[in-house]
Amino acid sequence: MWIRNCWYVAGFSEDVERKILARTFLNQAVILWRTSGGKVVAMEDRCPHRLVPLSIGQLVDDQVQCGYHGLRFGADGACSHVPGQDTLPRACQVKLFPVAERHALVWIWLGAADLADEKLIPDVHWMSSPGWTASKGYHHIEADYRLVNDNLLDLSHETYVHKETIGNGAVADSPVVATIDEGRVVRAHREMPNIIPPPFFAMMLNAPGRINRWQIAIHMPPGINMTEAGFHSVGTDRAKALMIRPLHLLTPETEHSTHYFWGTCRNFNHDDSVLTERIREGTAHTFDQDKHLLEIQDRALRAQGMPNIPQSAVKVDVGPVQGRRLLAALIEREQADPHAVAPTGTLAVDGKVTMPPAA
Amino acid sequence: MWIRNCWYVAGFSEDVERKILARTFLNQAVILWRTSGGKVVAMEDRCPHRLVPLSIGQLVDDQVQCGYHGLRFGADGACSHVPGQDTLPRACQVKLFPVAERHALVWIWLGAADLADEKLIPDVHWMSSPGWTASKGYHHIEADYRLVNDNLLDLSHETYVHKETIGNGAVADSPVVATIDEGRVVRAHREMPNIIPPPFFAMMLNAPGRINRWQIAIHMPPGINMTEAGFHSVGTDRAKALMIRPLHLLTPETEHSTHYFWGTCRNFNHDDSVLTERIREGTAHTFDQDKHLLEIQDRALRAQGMPNIPQSAVKVDVGPVQGRRLLAALIEREQADPHAVAPTGTLAVDGKVTMPPAA
Amino acid sequence: MWIRNCWYVAGFSEDVERKILARTFLNQAVILWRTSGGKVVAMEDRCPHRLVPLSIGQLVDDQVQCGYHGLRFGADGACSHVPGQDTLPRACQVKLFPVAERHALVWIWLGAADLADEKLIPDVHWMSSPGWTASKGYHHIEADYRLVNDNLLDLSHETYVHKETIGNGAVADSPVVATIDEGRVVRAHREMPNIIPPPFFAMMLNAPGRINRWQIAIHMPPGINMTEAGFHSVGTDRAKALMIRPLHLLTPETEHSTHYFWGTCRNFNHDDSVLTERIREGTAHTFDQDKHLLEIQDRALRAQGMPNIPQSAVKVDVGPVQGRRLLAALIEREQADPHAVAPTGTLAVDGKVTMPPAA
Repeated sequence: MWIRNCWYVAGFSEDVERKILARTFLNQAVILWRTSGGKVVAMEDRCPHRLVPLSIGQLVDDQVQCGYHGLRFGADGACSHVPGQDTLPRACQVKLFPVAERHALVWIWLGAADLADEKLIPDVHWMSSPGWTASKGYHHIEADYRLVNDNLLDLSHETYVHKETIGNGAVADSPVVATIDEGRVVRAHREMPNIIPPPFFAMMLNAPGRINRWQIAIHMPPGINMTEAGFHSVGTDRAKALMIRPLHLLTPETEHSTHYFWGTCRNFNHDDSVLTERIREGTAHTFDQDKHLLEIQDRALRAQGMPNIPQSAVKVDVGPVQGRRLLAALIEREQADPHAVAPTGTLAVDGKVTMPPAA
Repeated sequence: MWIRNCWYVAGFSEDVERKILARTFLNQAVILWRTSGGKVVAMEDRCPHRLVPLSIGQLVDDQVQCGYHGLRFGADGACSHVPGQDTLPRACQVKLFPVAERHALVWIWLGAADLADEKLIPDVHWMSSPGWTASKGYHHIEADYRLVNDNLLDLSHETYVHKETIGNGAVADSPVVATIDEGRVVRAHREMPNIIPPPFFAMMLNAPGRINRWQIAIHMPPGINMTEAGFHSVGTDRAKALMIRPLHLLTPETEHSTHYFWGTCRNFNHDDSVLTERIREGTAHTFDQDKHLLEIQDRALRAQGMPNIPQSAVKVDVGPVQGRRLLAALIEREQADPHAVAPTGTLAVDGKVTMPPAA
Repeated sequence: MWIRNCWYVAGFSEDVERKILARTFLNQAVILWRTSGGKVVAMEDRCPHRLVPLSIGQLVDDQVQCGYHGLRFGADGACSHVPGQDTLPRACQVKLFPVAERHALVWIWLGAADLADEKLIPDVHWMSSPGWTASKGYHHIEADYRLVNDNLLDLSHETYVHKETIGNGAVADSPVVATIDEGRVVRAHREMPNIIPPPFFAMMLNAPGRINRWQIAIHMPPGINMTEAGFHSVGTDRAKALMIRPLHLLTPETEHSTHYFWGTCRNFNHDDSVLTERIREGTAHTFDQDKHLLEIQDRALRAQGMPNIPQSAVKVDVGPVQGRRLLAALIEREQADPHAVAPTGTLAVDGKVTMPPAA
């Protein structure tokens, strides 16, 4: 249900400090820590001696010291100290995982280590680029990550789930057009001209009256999502629209739980820290609602033996159905060839006016 | 372990209102709601689109609107609205279950729908008839419903479990005579002449001195139970005895949980609302004790792999053993013929003096 | 993973009173109670009638009365009373387990009853002998008892887990010598001359300055452990050393939970009840730390499918590895011959000066 040969987000850069952080990705228990030189290290969360989690131990200089019998392991995974003896057992090693830092995020590679090419890190530069200001946060979702992708690829649910923030009748009622770029990226585009702004948009625009709004649900499997939203007062120029590009970066924790790292990136009012906080609050509140719904859905599907969804496809499923197809093809390819690696695609280009989709 | 082709109690009539009520019966998740015309509707609690429970949605006029993407379904189970499109997908249907209202109860049929004949609804008219006043309540029991039947068919446990309400030494010490009527109804009859009344009976009689008491545990499988209890002061006429006919209506929720709808119906002091409440309290307290014991028993049996009980039969088992035999025959018959339907039997007749059993 | 033909500790003598005590040993639910004559009885915690736990019942004279239908069973396990009938069903019996009291402990035999020879009760007389004063306690550990044995046989963990009580760097840094006596008892001996006393030892010694300390982890499978610790001020006579002999008596409850009965027995200041309590507190605090660690380890091992440990053996593993070998041989022997019984060994001899191990 997931691929291994790709970079997953392991955390925000600021999550990894000079102490041990334990997280599980794809059922693999991992510890993350930072050396005195600033380098991030990712290791299996398991002492090779008596198999207790290394996360109950502590950092001693640039070594992890086990909390049970005091064995130590360096940033290379090798055992560097055994209390009560001078020789070091060579087989006593902790497994390392390739890691990289980019876009203010820590990325981890859980597949074949020799394939971990940093060029394959998805470009989500909006999280940390000049010209963009991000309101960041994290949700832990007790649901299959594919259900979160589905949710993000069919935004008609905003009308029913997010009435008080980003949804109103205009979302579900507007037609959606889906395309696939480079065989890697799904785009589900919806134009909503001349509508009453939902509360979250009214707050950001801070101007009275109706707006033109567009939204594009952008998805690169297995778990990179962006929701471009543009909006401007009716009668003003589309090229001057305000834009947010919320990133939703999903890393499976287990078959039924997901790390959801997010950042709502905007291209306006960069110095307004009150706005940054309001956007963070509104986004967090919105994703709380998704979390509630997705966890109910996951429990219901598990009780039914995980049938395929949708069982009855309707028009708004065009995005999720395309996303699931791309993902299934990636999984199938990696199962056939454990060294298969997929190239990355482009989520969005800066400095161009987003145009309505061709009919 | 259960039959499907019969009417089960789904709730009290007043439980089903102009909003969605979710309950599970025989492992089937169901929603119950009432149309603007007052008709009760029972549907599978599952949207056929992305399989979330419809119970997270809401009623919109006489349609159920899914809480995720807003699809709507009418009282006939057909899809009546899909946001963002004009055509309605014909295959997109919610399963309906036959329901009926009688005796102030909602009844549901979970078997073959074409067999759902309302003539098969068990006659428990004491819940709502003139001449009877019911003190009603509900217990959720985390135990196999068959253990609850066993409990109700061997009332000798009153001596040990219900000392402060309905039991004393006289119950367990008095012999029990069991009969089967119409091949459908088990009666386990016990006469207790000239005894000190247990507290609950003293409260209802409201007169000093010893009483004559009888009790009949009446059971129609799979889950209809009545405990007729008659009592009068020693030296007074049996024909003038006060009577309660507590109904215990059991609907399996899962293999190890049971909906227990009850009503302690009496034939005296109908206008005494304080008495109605005292009987409700006394009954609820008594069934709290049964719930505690039955849940311990169910856990113990599960830990032992659900062996048959009783392992050692004693005289008081005559009622439960007969009840289990009738139930096993019904289950066997339905498994052999999915269209088998059992007729209903008569729990009790009004206006006749209950006589002691033939020796 | 365990043997049955041996005496396990069921409780402290004072735990078993004139009421029913329920405990599970080796997955077997048991009740313990004391007759009016003072004899301890151990029975299966299950009424043979409807299989409810007898522990919800009560003692009536020298009989256990079931809390459901009032059946009674005597100290011989036979049914002595059935309400509502005069004859007693002969097959209606409760299983008995051999029990014995010795060293202020109740011992139970869960194997073949005819092999339950009281001569096989391990000698742990320090719990109740003149010349020794015990600070006693109990911990319930949610872990495989073998992990607790491992923990007790490699005390180098004191340095990392018990810094505030019994551990310091000297423990893990001092070499350990392991021996096996009589094919039954493992001893892992460590000498720590001229060290700063850890806080718990400083408290007991109540004298300033450095000490000589020795410790011997003593283990007789399946679950009898003693940690002899001697200590005296540097420059004083070893023969005059103070000694504690903490007993750690382990009885498996289930595959992943353990009854841990303990007593820290000392040979000094017998009348100092404040010291008795301080030792109890210090021991309890120390074992709280072990409990925390062992439960994490058990969960980690279960998640990994219970691999063998240690995966990488280091020098300090010599004790645990020997202990596991003896245990595995006992299990293998009992599986080959259900009547195999192992003789007991000697944990320690009183009145002799403990000498350093031969190099």
